[in-house]
Amino acid sequence: MLGRLYTDQDCSAARALELVGERWSLLILRDAIFRRYTRFSDFQRSLGVASNVLAKRLDSFVAAGLMDIDTEAGGHPDYRLTEKGHALAPVIVALTEWGDRWVGPGPVLFDHAACGGRVRSGLTCDRCGQAVADAEVRASRRT
Amino acid sequence: MLGRLYTDQDCSAARALELVGERWSLLILRDAIFRRYTRFSDFQRSLGVASNVLAKRLDSFVAAGLMDIDTEAGGHPDYRLTEKGHALAPVIVALTEWGDRWVGPGPVLFDHAACGGRVRSGLTCDRCGQAVADAEVRASRRT
Repeated sequence: MLGRLYTDQDCSAARALELVGERWSLLILRDAIFRRYTRFSDFQRSLGVASNVLAKRLDSFVAAGLMDIDTEAGGHPDYRLTEKGHALAPVIVALTEWGDRWVGPGPVLFDHAACGGRVRSGLTCDRCGQAVADAEVRASRRT
Repeated sequence: MLGRLYTDQDCSAARALELVGERWSLLILRDAIFRRYTRFSDFQRSLGVASNVLAKRLDSFVAAGLMDIDTEAGGHPDYRLTEKGHALAPVIVALTEWGDRWVGPGPVLFDHAACGGRVRSGLTCDRCGQAVADAEVRASRRT
Protein backbone atom coordinates (compact mmCIF):
# COMPACT_ATOMS: atom_id res chain seq x y z
CA MET A 1 0.00 0.00 0.00
CA LEU A 2 1.15 3.53 -0.69
CA GLY A 3 -0.38 4.92 2.49
CA ARG A 4 2.66 6.34 4.16
CA LEU A 5 3.72 8.24 1.08
CA TYR A 6 0.37 9.92 0.66
CA THR A 7 -0.57 10.74 4.26
CA ASP A 8 -0.20 14.49 3.70
CA GLN A 9 -2.58 14.35 0.76
CA ASP A 10 -5.98 14.65 2.37
CA CYS A 11 -7.76 14.04 -0.88
CA SER A 12 -10.10 11.27 -1.92
CA ALA A 13 -8.27 10.62 -5.16
CA ALA A 14 -5.06 10.19 -3.16
CA ARG A 15 -6.71 7.87 -0.69
CA ALA A 16 -8.32 5.87 -3.47
CA LEU A 17 -4.89 5.45 -5.03
CA GLU A 18 -3.61 4.04 -1.75
CA LEU A 19 -6.04 1.16 -2.30
CA VAL A 20 -5.93 0.64 -6.06
CA GLY A 21 -2.85 2.45 -7.35
CA GLU A 22 -0.32 -0.36 -7.05
CA ARG A 23 0.92 -2.15 -10.13
CA TRP A 24 -1.63 -4.69 -11.40
CA SER A 25 -4.35 -3.65 -8.96
CA LEU A 26 -6.76 -2.10 -11.46
CA LEU A 27 -6.17 -4.88 -14.00
CA ILE A 28 -7.06 -7.55 -11.42
CA LEU A 29 -10.14 -5.55 -10.47
CA ARG A 30 -11.07 -5.14 -14.14
CA ASP A 31 -11.08 -8.93 -14.55
CA ALA A 32 -13.09 -9.34 -11.35
CA ILE A 33 -15.68 -6.71 -12.27
CA PHE A 34 -16.19 -7.26 -15.98
CA ARG A 35 -15.11 -10.86 -16.51
CA ARG A 36 -16.62 -12.09 -13.23
CA TYR A 37 -13.39 -13.89 -12.29
CA THR A 38 -13.18 -15.11 -8.69
CA ARG A 39 -10.39 -17.72 -8.84
CA PHE A 40 -6.69 -17.16 -8.32
CA SER A 41 -5.93 -19.35 -11.36
CA ASP A 42 -8.27 -17.32 -13.62
CA PHE A 43 -6.59 -14.03 -12.71
CA GLN A 44 -3.18 -15.57 -13.20
CA ARG A 45 -4.00 -17.02 -16.62
CA SER A 46 -5.60 -13.78 -17.76
CA LEU A 47 -2.86 -11.44 -16.60
CA GLY A 48 0.33 -13.48 -16.50
CA VAL A 49 1.18 -11.83 -13.19
CA ALA A 50 3.62 -13.53 -10.78
CA SER A 51 1.91 -15.67 -8.11
CA ASN A 52 3.44 -13.81 -5.19
CA VAL A 53 2.34 -10.43 -6.56
CA LEU A 54 -1.18 -11.68 -7.32
CA ALA A 55 -1.51 -13.20 -3.84
CA LYS A 56 -0.36 -9.94 -2.26
CA ARG A 57 -2.83 -7.87 -4.27
CA LEU A 58 -5.78 -10.17 -3.55
CA ASP A 59 -4.91 -10.16 0.16
CA SER A 60 -4.77 -6.35 0.12
CA PHE A 61 -8.18 -6.19 -1.61
CA VAL A 62 -9.66 -8.40 1.11
CA ALA A 63 -8.00 -6.27 3.81
CA ALA A 64 -9.34 -3.09 2.19
CA GLY A 65 -12.87 -4.47 1.88
CA LEU A 66 -12.88 -4.60 -1.93
CA MET A 67 -13.26 -8.39 -1.92
CA ASP A 68 -14.47 -11.09 0.45
CA ILE A 69 -12.77 -14.44 0.45
CA ASP A 70 -14.99 -17.51 0.39
CA THR A 71 -13.04 -20.60 1.37
CA GLU A 72 -16.08 -22.85 1.70
CA ALA A 73 -16.18 -23.64 -1.99
CA GLY A 74 -14.39 -27.00 -1.90
CA GLY A 75 -10.70 -26.13 -1.73
CA HIS A 76 -10.50 -23.29 -4.25
CA PRO A 77 -10.94 -19.99 -2.45
CA ASP A 78 -13.25 -17.61 -4.24
CA TYR A 79 -12.47 -13.91 -4.23
CA ARG A 80 -15.82 -12.15 -4.46
CA LEU A 81 -16.14 -8.43 -5.07
CA THR A 82 -17.90 -6.41 -2.43
CA GLU A 83 -20.09 -3.43 -3.29
CA LYS A 84 -17.08 -1.23 -2.55
CA GLY A 85 -14.97 -3.16 -5.05
CA HIS A 86 -17.65 -3.27 -7.72
CA ALA A 87 -18.11 0.50 -7.37
CA LEU A 88 -14.73 0.96 -9.09
CA ALA A 89 -16.40 0.07 -12.41
CA PRO A 90 -16.80 3.72 -13.52
CA VAL A 91 -13.13 4.44 -12.80
CA ILE A 92 -12.06 1.54 -15.02
CA VAL A 93 -14.48 2.53 -17.80
CA ALA A 94 -13.20 6.13 -17.71
CA LEU A 95 -9.57 4.99 -17.78
CA THR A 96 -10.24 2.62 -20.66
CA GLU A 97 -12.01 5.33 -22.67
CA TRP A 98 -9.07 7.63 -22.20
CA GLY A 99 -6.67 4.90 -23.35
CA ASP A 100 -8.85 4.06 -26.36
CA ARG A 101 -8.91 7.70 -27.42
CA TRP A 102 -5.39 8.81 -26.62
CA VAL A 103 -3.19 5.72 -26.64
CA GLY A 104 -4.98 3.56 -29.17
CA PRO A 105 -8.13 1.40 -29.41
CA GLY A 106 -7.94 -1.61 -27.12
CA PRO A 107 -9.86 -4.86 -27.44
CA VAL A 108 -12.36 -4.30 -24.63
CA LEU A 109 -15.74 -2.63 -25.13
CA PHE A 110 -18.30 -1.95 -22.42
CA ASP A 111 -21.91 -2.75 -23.27
CA HIS A 112 -25.23 -2.07 -21.57
CA ALA A 113 -26.64 -5.45 -20.56
CA ALA A 114 -30.23 -4.24 -20.95
CA CYS A 115 -30.05 -3.06 -24.57
CA GLY A 116 -26.62 -3.91 -25.96
CA GLY A 117 -25.66 -0.25 -26.52
CA ARG A 118 -22.20 1.06 -25.85
CA VAL A 119 -21.53 2.34 -22.30
CA ARG A 120 -19.79 5.71 -22.04
CA SER A 121 -18.45 7.53 -19.03
CA GLY A 122 -19.07 11.22 -18.71
CA LEU A 123 -19.48 14.19 -16.40
CA THR A 124 -22.83 15.79 -15.68
CA CYS A 125 -23.96 18.69 -13.53
CA ASP A 126 -26.42 17.83 -10.78
CA ARG A 127 -27.90 21.35 -10.84
CA CYS A 128 -28.48 22.11 -14.53
CA GLY A 129 -28.44 18.50 -15.69
CA GLN A 130 -26.13 19.26 -18.61
CA ALA A 131 -23.14 17.24 -19.74
CA VAL A 132 -20.01 19.01 -18.49
CA ALA A 133 -16.94 19.42 -20.68
CA ASP A 134 -13.58 18.79 -18.99
CA ALA A 135 -12.62 22.46 -19.27
CA GLU A 136 -15.77 23.49 -17.40
CA VAL A 137 -14.87 21.65 -14.20
CA ARG A 138 -13.54 23.70 -11.28
CA ALA A 139 -12.16 22.32 -8.02
CA SER A 140 -13.32 23.90 -4.79
CA ARG A 141 -12.72 23.04 -1.16
CA ARG A 142 -15.45 21.30 0.79
CA THR A 143 -16.42 23.58 3.70
CA MET B 1 7.04 3.65 -16.89
CA LEU B 2 5.41 0.30 -16.33
CA GLY B 3 5.47 -0.61 -20.02
CA ARG B 4 7.51 -3.75 -19.94
CA LEU B 5 5.42 -5.30 -17.19
CA TYR B 6 2.16 -4.72 -19.00
CA THR B 7 3.12 -5.53 -22.58
CA ASP B 8 1.00 -8.69 -22.63
CA GLN B 9 -2.06 -6.73 -21.52
CA ASP B 10 -3.46 -5.44 -24.78
CA CYS B 11 -6.05 -3.34 -23.04
CA SER B 12 -6.57 0.39 -22.99
CA ALA B 13 -6.87 0.52 -19.21
CA ALA B 14 -3.53 -1.26 -18.97
CA ARG B 15 -1.90 1.07 -21.47
CA ALA B 16 -3.34 4.13 -19.73
CA LEU B 17 -1.84 2.87 -16.48
CA GLU B 18 1.55 2.71 -18.18
CA LEU B 19 1.31 6.49 -18.52
CA VAL B 20 -0.43 7.56 -15.33
CA GLY B 21 -0.21 4.63 -12.92
CA GLU B 22 3.08 5.52 -11.25
CA ARG B 23 3.12 6.86 -7.69
CA TRP B 24 2.21 10.55 -7.61
CA SER B 25 1.30 10.75 -11.30
CA LEU B 26 -2.45 11.26 -10.91
CA LEU B 27 -1.96 13.70 -8.01
CA ILE B 28 0.36 15.86 -10.09
CA LEU B 29 -2.13 15.74 -12.94
CA ARG B 30 -4.98 16.61 -10.57
CA ASP B 31 -3.15 19.77 -9.53
CA ALA B 32 -2.38 20.62 -13.15
CA ILE B 33 -5.96 20.05 -14.35
CA PHE B 34 -8.04 21.48 -11.52
CA ARG B 35 -5.68 23.93 -9.82
CA ARG B 36 -4.12 25.12 -13.09
CA TYR B 37 -0.60 24.66 -11.72
CA THR B 38 2.20 24.88 -14.28
CA ARG B 39 5.29 25.50 -12.12
CA PHE B 40 7.59 22.92 -10.58
CA SER B 41 7.56 24.85 -7.30
CA ASP B 42 3.75 24.90 -7.13
CA PHE B 43 3.50 21.13 -7.57
CA GLN B 44 6.20 20.60 -5.00
CA ARG B 45 4.57 22.87 -2.41
CA SER B 46 1.17 21.32 -2.98
CA LEU B 47 2.24 17.70 -2.84
CA GLY B 48 5.42 17.60 -0.76
CA VAL B 49 6.88 15.17 -3.28
CA ALA B 50 10.67 14.78 -3.56
CA SER B 51 12.24 16.95 -6.27
CA ASN B 52 13.82 14.06 -8.13
CA VAL B 53 10.52 12.17 -8.27
CA LEU B 54 8.58 15.25 -9.38
CA ALA B 55 11.14 16.03 -12.09
CA LYS B 56 10.96 12.45 -13.33
CA ARG B 57 7.16 12.48 -13.47
CA LEU B 58 6.97 15.83 -15.26
CA ASP B 59 9.56 14.65 -17.79
CA SER B 60 7.56 11.49 -18.37
CA PHE B 61 4.38 13.53 -18.92
CA VAL B 62 6.17 15.64 -21.52
CA ALA B 63 7.54 12.49 -23.19
CA ALA B 64 4.06 10.94 -23.22
CA GLY B 65 2.44 14.05 -24.67
CA LEU B 66 0.39 14.87 -21.56
CA MET B 67 2.22 18.18 -21.07
CA ASP B 68 4.25 20.60 -23.15
CA ILE B 69 7.16 22.39 -21.57
CA ASP B 70 7.39 26.13 -22.21
CA THR B 71 10.85 27.42 -21.36
CA GLU B 72 10.32 30.85 -22.91
CA ALA B 73 8.65 32.21 -19.81
CA GLY B 74 11.64 33.96 -18.24
CA GLY B 75 13.60 31.22 -16.50
CA HIS B 76 10.79 29.26 -14.86
CA PRO B 77 9.73 26.48 -17.18
CA ASP B 78 5.96 26.12 -17.45
CA TYR B 79 4.44 22.67 -17.71
CA ARG B 80 1.27 23.11 -19.72
CA LEU B 81 -1.30 20.37 -20.11
CA THR B 82 -2.05 19.19 -23.61
CA GLU B 83 -5.53 18.12 -24.68
CA LYS B 84 -4.44 14.54 -24.02
CA GLY B 85 -3.45 15.43 -20.46
CA HIS B 86 -6.55 17.48 -19.77
CA ALA B 87 -8.68 14.59 -21.01
CA LEU B 88 -7.80 12.69 -17.83
CA ALA B 89 -10.21 14.94 -15.91
CA PRO B 90 -13.07 12.39 -15.92
CA VAL B 91 -10.76 9.66 -14.60
CA ILE B 92 -9.75 11.87 -11.66
CA VAL B 93 -13.35 12.90 -10.94
CA ALA B 94 -14.46 9.24 -10.98
CA LEU B 95 -11.60 8.19 -8.70
CA THR B 96 -12.33 11.04 -6.28
CA GLU B 97 -16.03 10.18 -6.15
CA TRP B 98 -15.19 6.61 -5.32
CA GLY B 99 -12.83 7.72 -2.54
CA ASP B 100 -15.41 10.16 -1.15
CA ARG B 101 -18.04 7.43 -1.01
CA TRP B 102 -16.00 4.45 0.09
CA VAL B 103 -12.92 5.77 1.91
CA GLY B 104 -14.28 8.99 3.39
CA PRO B 105 -15.18 12.51 2.21
CA GLY B 106 -12.14 14.44 1.02
CA PRO B 107 -11.73 18.20 0.83
CA VAL B 108 -12.04 18.60 -2.94
CA LEU B 109 -15.35 19.16 -4.73
CA PHE B 110 -15.84 19.51 -8.48
CA ASP B 111 -18.14 22.29 -9.65
CA HIS B 112 -19.64 23.23 -12.99
CA ALA B 113 -18.10 26.58 -13.96
CA ALA B 114 -21.21 27.64 -15.87
CA CYS B 115 -23.77 27.25 -13.06
CA GLY B 116 -21.94 26.31 -9.86
CA GLY B 117 -23.65 22.92 -9.56
CA ARG B 118 -21.82 19.83 -8.44
CA VAL B 119 -20.15 17.75 -11.17
CA ARG B 120 -20.76 14.00 -11.07
CA SER B 121 -19.25 11.22 -13.10
CA GLY B 122 -21.47 8.49 -14.38
CA LEU B 123 -22.06 5.87 -17.04
CA THR B 124 -24.64 6.26 -19.79
CA CYS B 125 -25.75 4.10 -22.70
CA ASP B 126 -25.29 5.64 -26.13
CA ARG B 127 -28.16 3.59 -27.57
CA CYS B 128 -31.01 3.98 -25.05
CA GLY B 129 -29.64 7.12 -23.40
CA GLN B 130 -30.22 5.78 -19.89
CA ALA B 131 -27.86 6.01 -16.93
CA VAL B 132 -26.20 2.61 -16.55
CA ALA B 133 -25.73 0.99 -13.13
CA ASP B 134 -22.34 -0.64 -12.53
CA ALA B 135 -23.90 -4.10 -12.44
CA GLU B 136 -25.39 -3.57 -15.91
CA VAL B 137 -22.05 -3.15 -17.64
CA ARG B 138 -20.71 -6.09 -19.65
CA ALA B 139 -17.28 -6.32 -21.27
CA SER B 140 -17.09 -7.60 -24.82
CA ARG B 141 -14.23 -7.90 -27.29
CA ARG B 142 -13.90 -5.36 -30.06
CA THR B 143 -14.16 -7.20 -33.38
